[in-house]
Amino acid sequence: MCEVFEFERPTDRFRIAMAIEYRGTRYRGWQVQRSGVPTVQQALESAISSVANEPVASIVAGRTDAGVHATNQIVHFDTQSERSEYGWQMGINGRLPDDISVRWVKQVDTEFHARFSAKERCYRFVIYNNWVKSALLNELTTWERYPLDAEKMQQAANLLLGQHDFSSFRAAECQAHSPVRTLKELSIERVGEFVILQVRADGFLHHMVRNLVGVLLPIGRGRKPIEWAQQVLAYQDRKKGGVTAHGDGLYFVRADYERNDLPKLDAGPSFIEPLIANLAPSFRPV
Amino acid sequence: MCEVFEFERPTDRFRIAMAIEYRGTRYRGWQVQRSGVPTVQQALESAISSVANEPVASIVAGRTDAGVHATNQIVHFDTQSERSEYGWQMGINGRLPDDISVRWVKQVDTEFHARFSAKERCYRFVIYNNWVKSALLNELTTWERYPLDAEKMQQAANLLLGQHDFSSFRAAECQAHSPVRTLKELSIERVGEFVILQVRADGFLHHMVRNLVGVLLPIGRGRKPIEWAQQVLAYQDRKKGGVTAHGDGLYFVRADYERNDLPKLDAGPSFIEPLIANLAPSFRPV
Repeated sequence: MCEVFEFERPTDRFRIAMAIEYRGTRYRGWQVQRSGVPTVQQALESAISSVANEPVASIVAGRTDAGVHATNQIVHFDTQSERSEYGWQMGINGRLPDDISVRWVKQVDTEFHARFSAKERCYRFVIYNNWVKSALLNELTTWERYPLDAEKMQQAANLLLGQHDFSSFRAAECQAHSPVRTLKELSIERVGEFVILQVRADGFLHHMVRNLVGVLLPIGRGRKPIEWAQQVLAYQDRKKGGVTAHGDGLYFVRADYERNDLPKLDAGPSFIEPLIANLAPSFRPV
Repeated sequence: MCEVFEFERPTDRFRIAMAIEYRGTRYRGWQVQRSGVPTVQQALESAISSVANEPVASIVAGRTDAGVHATNQIVHFDTQSERSEYGWQMGINGRLPDDISVRWVKQVDTEFHARFSAKERCYRFVIYNNWVKSALLNELTTWERYPLDAEKMQQAANLLLGQHDFSSFRAAECQAHSPVRTLKELSIERVGEFVILQVRADGFLHHMVRNLVGVLLPIGRGRKPIEWAQQVLAYQDRKKGGVTAHGDGLYFVRADYERNDLPKLDAGPSFIEPLIANLAPSFRPV
Protein backbone atom coordinates (compact mmCIF):
# COMPACT_ATOMS: atom_id res chain seq x y z
CA MET A 1 0.00 0.00 0.00
CA CYS A 2 1.55 3.28 -1.02
CA GLU A 3 -1.33 5.58 -0.15
CA VAL A 4 0.67 7.12 2.66
CA PHE A 5 3.13 8.60 0.15
CA GLU A 6 0.46 10.31 -1.89
CA PHE A 7 0.21 13.17 0.54
CA GLU A 8 3.94 13.79 0.53
CA ARG A 9 4.49 13.73 -3.25
CA PRO A 10 1.45 13.58 -5.45
CA THR A 11 2.28 11.22 -8.29
CA ASP A 12 1.00 11.41 -11.82
CA ARG A 13 -1.85 8.98 -11.93
CA PHE A 14 -2.61 8.74 -15.60
CA ARG A 15 -0.48 7.87 -18.60
CA ILE A 16 -2.00 8.96 -21.89
CA ALA A 17 -0.82 7.72 -25.31
CA MET A 18 -1.80 9.32 -28.58
CA ALA A 19 -1.04 9.50 -32.31
CA ILE A 20 -0.44 12.86 -33.87
CA GLU A 21 -0.19 14.03 -37.46
CA TYR A 22 1.79 17.11 -38.34
CA ARG A 23 2.97 19.09 -41.30
CA GLY A 24 6.54 19.86 -40.25
CA THR A 25 7.15 22.74 -42.66
CA ARG A 26 6.73 25.56 -40.13
CA TYR A 27 8.64 23.83 -37.35
CA ARG A 28 12.27 23.40 -36.38
CA GLY A 29 11.67 19.72 -35.83
CA TRP A 30 10.13 17.89 -32.92
CA GLN A 31 12.20 18.81 -29.91
CA VAL A 32 11.72 21.87 -27.71
CA GLN A 33 14.58 24.30 -28.33
CA ARG A 34 15.64 27.74 -27.17
CA SER A 35 12.72 30.07 -26.74
CA GLY A 36 11.29 31.59 -29.86
CA VAL A 37 11.97 28.66 -32.16
CA PRO A 38 8.69 26.90 -33.01
CA THR A 39 8.79 23.14 -32.53
CA VAL A 40 6.08 20.50 -32.68
CA GLN A 41 6.74 19.40 -29.10
CA GLN A 42 6.38 22.94 -27.82
CA ALA A 43 3.06 23.46 -29.63
CA LEU A 44 1.75 20.09 -28.48
CA GLU A 45 2.80 20.44 -24.82
CA SER A 46 1.26 23.89 -24.71
CA ALA A 47 -2.08 22.46 -25.91
CA ILE A 48 -1.93 19.43 -23.60
CA SER A 49 -0.98 21.56 -20.58
CA SER A 50 -3.90 23.85 -21.24
CA VAL A 51 -6.33 20.93 -21.27
CA ALA A 52 -4.66 19.26 -18.27
CA ASN A 53 -4.53 22.54 -16.39
CA GLU A 54 -0.98 21.70 -15.29
CA PRO A 55 2.43 21.66 -17.00
CA VAL A 56 2.82 18.46 -19.01
CA ALA A 57 5.96 16.98 -20.61
CA SER A 58 5.71 14.62 -23.57
CA ILE A 59 7.77 11.65 -24.80
CA VAL A 60 7.81 10.79 -28.50
CA ALA A 61 8.50 7.58 -30.45
CA GLY A 62 10.82 9.25 -32.98
CA ARG A 63 12.18 12.80 -32.91
CA THR A 64 11.89 14.36 -36.35
CA ASP A 65 14.07 17.02 -38.00
CA ALA A 66 13.07 20.45 -39.24
CA GLY A 67 10.50 20.27 -42.04
CA VAL A 68 9.82 16.54 -41.56
CA HIS A 69 6.20 15.44 -41.26
CA ALA A 70 4.39 12.71 -39.34
CA THR A 71 1.14 10.85 -39.90
CA ASN A 72 1.14 8.61 -36.81
CA GLN A 73 3.74 9.94 -34.41
CA ILE A 74 3.23 8.19 -31.06
CA VAL A 75 3.44 10.35 -27.95
CA HIS A 76 2.79 9.73 -24.27
CA PHE A 77 2.50 11.99 -21.27
CA ASP A 78 1.74 11.63 -17.57
CA THR A 79 -0.78 13.76 -15.77
CA GLN A 80 -2.77 14.02 -12.58
CA SER A 81 -5.78 15.32 -14.50
CA GLU A 82 -8.61 12.98 -15.32
CA ARG A 83 -10.28 13.46 -18.71
CA SER A 84 -12.04 11.07 -21.07
CA GLU A 85 -10.10 9.98 -24.15
CA TYR A 86 -12.60 11.93 -26.24
CA GLY A 87 -12.17 14.93 -23.95
CA TRP A 88 -8.39 14.89 -24.34
CA GLN A 89 -8.61 14.60 -28.13
CA MET A 90 -11.25 17.30 -28.59
CA GLY A 91 -9.63 19.64 -26.11
CA ILE A 92 -6.10 19.30 -27.47
CA ASN A 93 -7.21 19.51 -31.12
CA GLY A 94 -9.12 22.67 -30.34
CA ARG A 95 -5.94 24.26 -28.97
CA LEU A 96 -3.48 23.07 -31.62
CA PRO A 97 -2.48 25.06 -34.70
CA ASP A 98 -3.98 23.85 -38.00
CA ASP A 99 -0.85 21.89 -38.99
CA ILE A 100 -0.89 19.53 -36.00
CA SER A 101 -3.74 17.18 -35.06
CA VAL A 102 -4.38 14.37 -32.61
CA ARG A 103 -5.71 11.29 -34.43
CA TRP A 104 -6.47 9.12 -31.39
CA VAL A 105 -6.00 9.12 -27.63
CA LYS A 106 -5.79 6.08 -25.37
CA GLN A 107 -5.16 5.79 -21.66
CA VAL A 108 -2.42 3.23 -21.02
CA ASP A 109 -0.64 1.71 -18.03
CA THR A 110 2.78 3.00 -17.01
CA GLU A 111 4.46 -0.01 -18.59
CA PHE A 112 3.98 1.72 -21.92
CA HIS A 113 6.68 4.13 -23.05
CA ALA A 114 6.34 5.81 -26.47
CA ARG A 115 10.10 5.79 -27.02
CA PHE A 116 11.56 2.85 -25.10
CA SER A 117 8.75 0.37 -25.77
CA ALA A 118 8.88 0.89 -29.53
CA LYS A 119 10.42 -2.12 -31.21
CA GLU A 120 10.20 -0.78 -34.74
CA ARG A 121 9.76 2.53 -36.53
CA CYS A 122 8.60 3.10 -40.08
CA TYR A 123 9.15 6.10 -42.32
CA ARG A 124 7.94 6.87 -45.82
CA PHE A 125 9.70 9.21 -48.20
CA VAL A 126 7.77 10.66 -51.15
CA ILE A 127 9.67 11.92 -54.18
CA TYR A 128 7.94 13.96 -56.88
CA ASN A 129 9.83 12.94 -60.01
CA ASN A 130 9.08 15.30 -62.87
CA TRP A 131 11.17 17.86 -64.69
CA VAL A 132 8.63 20.50 -63.62
CA LYS A 133 8.28 20.97 -59.86
CA SER A 134 4.92 20.49 -58.16
CA ALA A 135 3.68 23.87 -56.97
CA LEU A 136 0.94 22.23 -54.89
CA LEU A 137 3.01 19.54 -53.18
CA ASN A 138 6.34 21.32 -52.94
CA GLU A 139 6.50 21.13 -49.13
CA LEU A 140 4.93 17.67 -48.92
CA THR A 141 7.28 15.90 -51.34
CA THR A 142 10.93 16.10 -52.28
CA TRP A 143 11.36 17.20 -55.88
CA GLU A 144 13.74 15.30 -58.18
CA ARG A 145 13.84 16.70 -61.70
CA TYR A 146 15.87 13.92 -63.33
CA PRO A 147 14.22 10.59 -64.15
CA LEU A 148 14.76 7.98 -61.46
CA ASP A 149 15.11 4.25 -62.10
CA ALA A 150 13.23 2.83 -59.11
CA GLU A 151 14.35 -0.72 -59.89
CA LYS A 152 18.01 0.22 -59.66
CA MET A 153 17.30 2.03 -56.43
CA GLN A 154 15.62 -1.12 -55.10
CA GLN A 155 18.61 -3.27 -56.02
CA ALA A 156 20.89 -0.84 -54.19
CA ALA A 157 18.53 -0.75 -51.23
CA ASN A 158 18.67 -4.53 -50.94
CA LEU A 159 22.41 -4.27 -50.27
CA LEU A 160 21.70 -2.25 -47.14
CA LEU A 161 19.17 -4.56 -45.49
CA GLY A 162 19.97 -6.25 -42.20
CA GLN A 163 22.11 -5.34 -39.21
CA HIS A 164 24.99 -2.98 -40.02
CA ASP A 165 27.13 -0.18 -38.70
CA PHE A 166 25.38 2.78 -40.34
CA SER A 167 28.07 5.36 -39.49
CA SER A 168 28.13 6.51 -43.13
CA PHE A 169 24.45 7.42 -42.84
CA ARG A 170 24.69 9.18 -39.48
CA ALA A 171 24.75 12.95 -38.96
CA ALA A 172 27.84 14.33 -37.19
CA GLU A 173 25.67 15.60 -34.34
CA CYS A 174 23.99 12.22 -33.77
CA GLN A 175 23.88 11.39 -30.05
CA ALA A 176 23.14 7.65 -30.29
CA HIS A 177 25.50 5.37 -28.37
CA SER A 178 25.83 2.86 -31.17
CA PRO A 179 25.79 3.26 -34.97
CA VAL A 180 24.45 -0.28 -35.38
CA ARG A 181 20.88 -0.58 -36.56
CA THR A 182 18.83 -3.33 -38.18
CA LEU A 183 17.24 -2.27 -41.45
CA LYS A 184 14.21 -4.53 -41.86
CA GLU A 185 12.72 -3.08 -45.01
CA LEU A 186 13.74 -0.55 -47.64
CA SER A 187 11.18 -0.73 -50.45
CA ILE A 188 11.05 1.60 -53.42
CA GLU A 189 8.16 1.82 -55.85
CA ARG A 190 7.27 4.15 -58.68
CA VAL A 191 3.63 5.15 -59.09
CA GLY A 192 3.20 7.65 -61.88
CA GLU A 193 5.20 10.76 -61.07
CA PHE A 194 5.85 9.62 -57.51
CA VAL A 195 8.68 7.45 -56.26
CA ILE A 196 7.80 6.24 -52.78
CA LEU A 197 10.16 4.66 -50.26
CA GLN A 198 9.14 2.71 -47.19
CA VAL A 199 11.83 2.02 -44.61
CA ARG A 200 11.54 0.08 -41.36
CA ALA A 201 14.16 -0.42 -38.65
CA ASP A 202 14.43 -1.06 -34.92
CA GLY A 203 15.55 2.54 -34.71
CA PHE A 204 17.15 5.27 -36.80
CA LEU A 205 20.26 7.39 -36.39
CA HIS A 206 20.06 11.15 -36.83
CA HIS A 207 19.40 11.97 -40.52
CA MET A 208 19.61 8.25 -41.36
CA VAL A 209 16.58 8.08 -43.67
CA ARG A 210 17.53 11.27 -45.50
CA ASN A 211 21.10 9.97 -45.88
CA LEU A 212 19.84 6.63 -47.21
CA VAL A 213 17.76 8.53 -49.78
CA GLY A 214 20.80 10.71 -50.50
CA VAL A 215 22.71 7.60 -51.59
CA LEU A 216 19.82 6.03 -53.51
CA LEU A 217 19.04 9.17 -55.53
CA PRO A 218 22.33 9.33 -57.52
CA ILE A 219 21.97 5.59 -58.16
CA GLY A 220 18.43 6.11 -59.42
CA ARG A 221 19.67 8.89 -61.67
CA GLY A 222 22.41 6.64 -63.05
CA ARG A 223 25.24 8.78 -61.73
CA LYS A 224 26.48 6.10 -59.37
CA PRO A 225 26.51 2.31 -59.79
CA ILE A 226 24.25 0.12 -57.70
CA GLU A 227 27.25 -1.22 -55.75
CA TRP A 228 28.03 2.27 -54.50
CA ALA A 229 25.41 1.76 -51.76
CA GLN A 230 27.43 -1.14 -50.37
CA GLN A 231 30.69 0.81 -50.65
CA VAL A 232 29.29 3.75 -48.71
CA LEU A 233 28.04 1.38 -46.03
CA ALA A 234 31.47 -0.29 -45.78
CA TYR A 235 33.32 3.04 -45.40
CA GLN A 236 31.59 3.58 -42.03
CA ASP A 237 32.43 7.22 -42.61
CA ARG A 238 29.80 9.95 -43.04
CA LYS A 239 32.23 12.06 -45.08
CA LYS A 240 32.18 9.44 -47.83
CA GLY A 241 28.38 9.22 -47.86
CA GLY A 242 25.90 10.95 -50.12
CA VAL A 243 24.20 14.31 -49.84
CA THR A 244 21.48 14.46 -47.18
CA ALA A 245 18.16 14.46 -49.07
CA HIS A 246 15.74 17.31 -48.40
CA GLY A 247 13.27 16.54 -45.60
CA ASP A 248 10.15 17.82 -47.38
CA GLY A 249 9.21 14.31 -48.54
CA LEU A 250 9.86 12.53 -45.25
CA TYR A 251 7.08 11.20 -43.02
CA PHE A 252 7.22 9.34 -39.72
CA VAL A 253 4.34 6.92 -40.35
CA ARG A 254 4.43 4.23 -37.68
CA ALA A 255 5.90 3.00 -34.41
CA ASP A 256 5.25 -0.61 -33.41
CA TYR A 257 4.98 -1.97 -29.89
CA GLU A 258 4.64 -5.42 -28.34
CA ARG A 259 1.14 -4.55 -27.21
CA ASN A 260 -1.67 -4.77 -29.75
CA ASP A 261 -4.26 -2.64 -28.04
CA LEU A 262 -3.31 0.66 -29.68
CA PRO A 263 -5.45 1.91 -32.58
CA LYS A 264 -3.94 1.50 -36.04
CA LEU A 265 -4.79 4.02 -38.73
CA ASP A 266 -3.57 4.22 -42.33
CA ALA A 267 0.16 4.85 -42.42
CA GLY A 268 -0.33 7.61 -44.98
CA PRO A 269 0.31 10.33 -45.89
CA SER A 270 -3.31 10.35 -47.01
CA PHE A 271 -2.54 11.71 -50.48
CA ILE A 272 -0.40 8.66 -51.32
CA GLU A 273 -2.59 6.00 -49.69
CA PRO A 274 -4.60 5.41 -52.90
CA LEU A 275 -1.31 4.98 -54.76
CA ILE A 276 0.07 2.62 -52.14
CA ALA A 277 -3.08 0.52 -52.16
CA ASN A 278 -2.32 -0.71 -55.65
CA LEU A 279 1.24 -1.66 -54.65
CA ALA A 280 0.37 -4.27 -52.07
CA PRO A 281 1.98 -6.59 -51.27
CA SER A 282 5.26 -5.06 -52.50
CA PHE A 283 5.22 -2.72 -49.54
CA ARG A 284 5.00 -4.65 -46.33
CA PRO A 285 1.79 -3.43 -44.72
CA VAL A 286 2.44 -1.15 -41.75
CA MET B 1 1.94 45.08 -96.41
CA CYS B 2 2.27 46.69 -93.04
CA GLU B 3 6.01 46.68 -92.77
CA VAL B 4 6.06 50.44 -93.02
CA PHE B 5 4.32 50.72 -89.65
CA GLU B 6 6.80 48.54 -87.83
CA PHE B 7 9.29 51.35 -87.55
CA GLU B 8 6.77 53.75 -86.07
CA ARG B 9 5.30 51.51 -83.34
CA PRO B 10 6.99 48.19 -82.71
CA THR B 11 4.25 45.63 -82.18
CA ASP B 12 4.41 42.55 -80.03
CA ARG B 13 5.22 39.77 -82.41
CA PHE B 14 4.67 36.67 -80.31
CA ARG B 15 1.70 35.44 -78.34
CA ILE B 16 2.60 32.78 -75.77
CA ALA B 17 0.04 30.56 -74.02
CA MET B 18 0.82 28.46 -70.99
CA ALA B 19 -0.69 26.42 -68.17
CA ILE B 20 0.34 27.20 -64.64
CA GLU B 21 -0.17 25.39 -61.35
CA TYR B 22 -0.19 27.28 -58.08
CA ARG B 23 -0.79 26.79 -54.42
CA GLY B 24 -2.81 29.90 -53.62
CA THR B 25 -2.31 29.88 -49.86
CA ARG B 26 0.31 32.64 -49.72
CA TYR B 27 -1.40 34.89 -52.28
CA ARG B 28 -4.19 37.42 -52.23
CA GLY B 29 -5.68 35.83 -55.30
CA TRP B 30 -4.71 36.13 -58.94
CA GLN B 31 -4.98 39.79 -59.77
CA VAL B 32 -2.26 42.41 -59.26
CA GLN B 33 -3.26 44.72 -56.40
CA ARG B 34 -1.79 47.63 -54.50
CA SER B 35 1.92 47.33 -53.94
CA GLY B 36 3.02 45.01 -51.18
CA VAL B 37 0.18 42.51 -51.49
CA PRO B 38 1.49 39.28 -53.04
CA THR B 39 -0.60 37.99 -55.94
CA VAL B 40 -0.03 35.15 -58.39
CA GLN B 41 -0.20 37.51 -61.38
CA GLN B 42 2.46 39.76 -59.87
CA ALA B 43 4.84 36.85 -59.20
CA LEU B 44 4.23 35.39 -62.66
CA GLU B 45 4.62 38.66 -64.60
CA SER B 46 7.81 39.40 -62.71
CA ALA B 47 9.26 36.03 -63.79
CA ILE B 48 8.04 36.35 -67.40
CA SER B 49 9.32 39.92 -67.70
CA SER B 50 12.73 38.82 -66.47
CA VAL B 51 12.95 36.10 -69.12
CA ALA B 52 11.50 38.39 -71.83
CA ASN B 53 13.81 41.21 -70.78
CA GLU B 54 10.85 43.61 -71.15
CA PRO B 55 7.71 44.37 -69.11
CA VAL B 56 5.05 41.78 -69.87
CA ALA B 57 1.34 41.81 -68.95
CA SER B 58 -0.62 38.56 -68.67
CA ILE B 59 -4.24 37.57 -69.32
CA VAL B 60 -5.77 34.67 -67.42
CA ALA B 61 -8.67 32.30 -68.15
CA GLY B 62 -10.19 32.63 -64.67
CA ARG B 63 -9.23 35.03 -61.92
CA THR B 64 -9.05 33.19 -58.60
CA ASP B 65 -9.66 34.51 -55.06
CA ALA B 66 -7.29 34.62 -52.12
CA GLY B 67 -6.16 31.14 -51.07
CA VAL B 68 -7.63 29.42 -54.14
CA HIS B 69 -5.37 27.05 -56.09
CA ALA B 70 -4.99 26.11 -59.75
CA THR B 71 -3.68 23.04 -61.54
CA ASN B 72 -4.11 24.18 -65.15
CA GLN B 73 -4.72 27.90 -65.15
CA ILE B 74 -4.41 29.13 -68.72
CA VAL B 75 -2.49 32.35 -69.28
CA HIS B 76 -1.33 34.24 -72.36
CA PHE B 77 1.01 37.14 -72.88
CA ASP B 78 2.40 39.10 -75.83
CA THR B 79 6.06 39.84 -76.25
CA GLN B 80 8.64 41.03 -78.74
CA SER B 81 11.16 38.57 -77.37
CA GLU B 82 11.81 35.33 -79.20
CA ARG B 83 12.44 32.26 -77.06
CA SER B 84 11.80 28.56 -77.60
CA GLU B 85 8.83 27.07 -75.76
CA TYR B 86 11.31 25.06 -73.69
CA GLY B 87 13.31 28.22 -73.05
CA TRP B 88 10.27 30.10 -71.78
CA GLN B 89 9.22 27.26 -69.51
CA MET B 90 12.68 26.61 -68.05
CA GLY B 91 13.43 30.31 -67.67
CA ILE B 92 10.15 31.23 -66.03
CA ASN B 93 10.11 28.19 -63.73
CA GLY B 94 13.61 29.04 -62.60
CA ARG B 95 12.44 32.50 -61.56
CA LEU B 96 9.12 31.57 -59.93
CA PRO B 97 8.64 30.89 -56.21
CA ASP B 98 8.22 27.22 -55.24
CA ASP B 99 4.42 27.46 -55.07
CA ILE B 100 3.91 28.45 -58.72
CA SER B 101 5.02 26.41 -61.74
CA VAL B 102 4.59 26.48 -65.50
CA ARG B 103 3.37 23.10 -66.76
CA TRP B 104 3.55 23.78 -70.49
CA VAL B 105 4.21 26.63 -72.90
CA LYS B 106 2.94 26.96 -76.46
CA GLN B 107 3.31 29.73 -78.99
CA VAL B 108 -0.11 30.58 -80.44
CA ASP B 109 -1.54 32.97 -83.00
CA THR B 110 -3.17 36.21 -81.87
CA GLU B 111 -6.62 34.73 -82.45
CA PHE B 112 -6.16 32.95 -79.14
CA HIS B 113 -7.19 34.80 -75.99
CA ALA B 114 -6.89 33.01 -72.62
CA ARG B 115 -9.95 34.77 -71.25
CA PHE B 116 -12.25 35.60 -74.16
CA SER B 117 -11.67 32.43 -76.21
CA ALA B 118 -12.52 30.16 -73.27
CA LYS B 119 -15.88 28.53 -73.82
CA GLU B 120 -15.91 26.60 -70.58
CA ARG B 121 -14.17 26.57 -67.21
CA CYS B 122 -13.92 23.72 -64.74
CA TYR B 123 -13.25 23.84 -61.00
CA ARG B 124 -12.82 21.08 -58.47
CA PHE B 125 -13.52 21.48 -54.77
CA VAL B 126 -11.99 19.00 -52.31
CA ILE B 127 -13.58 18.56 -48.88
CA TYR B 128 -11.81 16.62 -46.14
CA ASN B 129 -14.71 15.11 -44.24
CA ASN B 130 -13.57 13.76 -40.89
CA TRP B 131 -14.22 14.83 -37.31
CA VAL B 132 -10.44 15.29 -36.92
CA LYS B 133 -8.88 17.90 -39.20
CA SER B 134 -6.08 16.94 -41.59
CA ALA B 135 -2.87 18.56 -40.39
CA LEU B 136 -1.11 17.70 -43.68
CA LEU B 137 -3.79 18.85 -46.12
CA ASN B 138 -5.28 21.71 -44.13
CA GLU B 139 -4.49 24.33 -46.79
CA LEU B 140 -5.19 22.04 -49.75
CA THR B 141 -8.67 20.92 -48.71
CA THR B 142 -11.66 22.45 -46.94
CA TRP B 143 -12.34 20.72 -43.66
CA GLU B 144 -15.88 19.65 -42.78
CA ARG B 145 -16.12 17.90 -39.42
CA TYR B 146 -19.75 16.73 -39.69
CA PRO B 147 -20.58 13.71 -41.88
CA LEU B 148 -21.76 14.70 -45.35
CA ASP B 149 -24.33 12.80 -47.39
CA ALA B 150 -22.87 13.13 -50.89
CA GLU B 151 -25.98 11.66 -52.51
CA LYS B 152 -28.21 14.32 -51.01
CA MET B 153 -25.73 16.95 -52.15
CA GLN B 154 -25.88 15.50 -55.66
CA GLN B 155 -29.67 15.62 -55.72
CA ALA B 156 -29.56 19.27 -54.66
CA ALA B 157 -26.86 20.00 -57.23
CA ASN B 158 -29.04 18.59 -59.99
CA LEU B 159 -31.61 21.30 -59.23
CA LEU B 160 -29.05 23.96 -60.15
CA LEU B 161 -27.97 22.61 -63.54
CA GLY B 162 -28.67 24.58 -66.69
CA GLN B 163 -28.99 28.27 -67.50
CA HIS B 164 -30.09 30.41 -64.55
CA ASP B 165 -29.80 33.80 -62.92
CA PHE B 166 -27.21 32.98 -60.24
CA SER B 167 -27.60 36.26 -58.31
CA SER B 168 -27.98 34.30 -55.06
CA PHE B 169 -24.52 32.82 -55.61
CA ARG B 170 -22.77 36.03 -56.58
CA ALA B 171 -20.54 38.11 -54.32
CA ALA B 172 -21.67 41.70 -53.71
CA GLU B 173 -18.49 43.00 -55.35
CA CYS B 174 -18.96 40.92 -58.53
CA GLN B 175 -18.33 43.04 -61.63
CA ALA B 176 -19.94 40.80 -64.25
CA HIS B 177 -22.55 42.47 -66.47
CA SER B 178 -25.00 39.60 -66.23
CA PRO B 179 -25.77 37.12 -63.41
CA VAL B 180 -26.86 34.52 -65.96
CA ARG B 181 -24.59 31.51 -66.35
CA THR B 182 -25.00 27.99 -67.70
CA LEU B 183 -24.05 25.33 -65.19
CA LYS B 184 -23.12 22.29 -67.29
CA GLU B 185 -21.99 19.91 -64.56
CA LEU B 186 -22.06 19.81 -60.78
CA SER B 187 -20.96 16.34 -59.72
CA ILE B 188 -20.31 15.27 -56.15
CA GLU B 189 -18.62 12.03 -55.13
CA ARG B 190 -17.37 10.64 -51.87
CA VAL B 191 -14.10 8.70 -51.89
CA GLY B 192 -13.10 7.64 -48.39
CA GLU B 193 -12.63 10.73 -46.26
CA PHE B 194 -12.85 13.06 -49.27
CA VAL B 195 -15.93 14.56 -50.86
CA ILE B 196 -14.99 15.91 -54.27
CA LEU B 197 -17.03 18.31 -56.41
CA GLN B 198 -16.52 18.96 -60.10
CA VAL B 199 -18.28 21.97 -61.57
CA ARG B 200 -18.28 23.17 -65.18
CA ALA B 201 -19.85 26.31 -66.64
CA ASP B 202 -19.39 28.74 -69.49
CA GLY B 203 -18.15 31.13 -66.85
CA PHE B 204 -18.41 31.83 -63.14
CA LEU B 205 -19.49 34.84 -61.11
CA HIS B 206 -17.35 36.11 -58.25
CA HIS B 207 -17.37 33.53 -55.38
CA MET B 208 -19.88 31.43 -57.35
CA VAL B 209 -18.27 28.03 -56.74
CA ARG B 210 -17.68 28.74 -53.06
CA ASN B 211 -21.28 29.94 -52.74
CA LEU B 212 -22.58 26.80 -54.48
CA VAL B 213 -20.60 24.69 -52.01
CA GLY B 214 -21.89 26.91 -49.20
CA VAL B 215 -25.45 25.86 -50.10
CA LEU B 216 -24.64 22.19 -50.66
CA LEU B 217 -22.79 21.74 -47.34
CA PRO B 218 -25.78 22.33 -45.01
CA ILE B 219 -27.82 20.03 -47.26
CA GLY B 220 -25.10 17.36 -47.01
CA ARG B 221 -25.12 17.76 -43.24
CA GLY B 222 -28.89 17.37 -43.13
CA ARG B 223 -29.51 20.85 -41.76
CA LYS B 224 -31.34 22.00 -44.87
CA PRO B 225 -33.65 20.03 -47.19
CA ILE B 226 -32.57 19.19 -50.72
CA GLU B 227 -35.13 21.65 -52.14
CA TRP B 228 -33.40 24.53 -50.38
CA ALA B 229 -30.93 24.68 -53.27
CA GLN B 230 -33.76 25.51 -55.66
CA GLN B 231 -35.26 28.02 -53.25
CA VAL B 232 -31.97 29.88 -52.90
CA LEU B 233 -31.62 29.96 -56.69
CA ALA B 234 -35.17 31.33 -57.07
CA TYR B 235 -34.59 34.13 -54.53
CA GLN B 236 -32.04 35.72 -56.88
CA ASP B 237 -30.76 37.44 -53.75
CA ARG B 238 -27.31 36.85 -52.29
CA LYS B 239 -28.53 37.78 -48.80
CA LYS B 240 -30.74 34.68 -48.79
CA GLY B 241 -27.93 32.39 -49.94
CA GLY B 242 -25.63 30.20 -47.91
CA VAL B 243 -22.33 30.94 -46.24
CA THR B 244 -19.39 31.26 -48.65
CA ALA B 245 -17.33 28.07 -48.29
CA HIS B 246 -13.65 28.43 -47.42
CA GLY B 247 -11.40 28.58 -50.49
CA ASP B 248 -8.72 26.15 -49.25
CA GLY B 249 -10.30 23.25 -51.16
CA LEU B 250 -10.94 25.09 -54.43
CA TYR B 251 -8.93 24.44 -57.60
CA PHE B 252 -9.19 25.96 -61.06
CA VAL B 253 -8.50 22.81 -63.07
CA ARG B 254 -9.38 23.50 -66.72
CA ALA B 255 -10.33 26.04 -69.36
CA ASP B 256 -11.61 24.74 -72.69
CA TYR B 257 -11.22 26.39 -76.06
CA GLU B 258 -12.49 25.72 -79.58
CA ARG B 259 -8.97 24.89 -80.68
CA ASN B 260 -7.62 21.43 -79.89
CA ASP B 261 -3.92 22.08 -80.26
CA LEU B 262 -3.24 22.99 -76.62
CA PRO B 263 -1.66 20.32 -74.39
CA LYS B 264 -4.03 18.62 -71.95
CA LEU B 265 -2.67 17.39 -68.64
CA ASP B 266 -4.47 15.70 -65.76
CA ALA B 267 -7.02 18.05 -64.26
CA GLY B 268 -5.75 17.27 -60.77
CA PRO B 269 -4.96 18.21 -58.11
CA SER B 270 -2.45 15.36 -58.31
CA PHE B 271 -3.22 14.03 -54.84
CA ILE B 272 -6.85 13.33 -55.79
CA GLU B 273 -6.23 11.99 -59.31
CA PRO B 274 -5.88 8.36 -58.11
CA LEU B 275 -9.20 8.76 -56.27
CA ILE B 276 -10.89 10.32 -59.30
CA ALA B 277 -9.63 7.55 -61.57
CA ASN B 278 -11.92 5.05 -59.87
CA LEU B 279 -14.92 7.35 -60.24
CA ALA B 280 -15.01 7.48 -64.01
CA PRO B 281 -17.37 7.93 -65.70
CA SER B 282 -19.36 9.60 -62.91
CA PHE B 283 -17.22 12.67 -63.30
CA ARG B 284 -17.27 13.89 -66.85
CA PRO B 285 -13.65 13.70 -67.97
CA VAL B 286 -12.01 17.11 -68.21
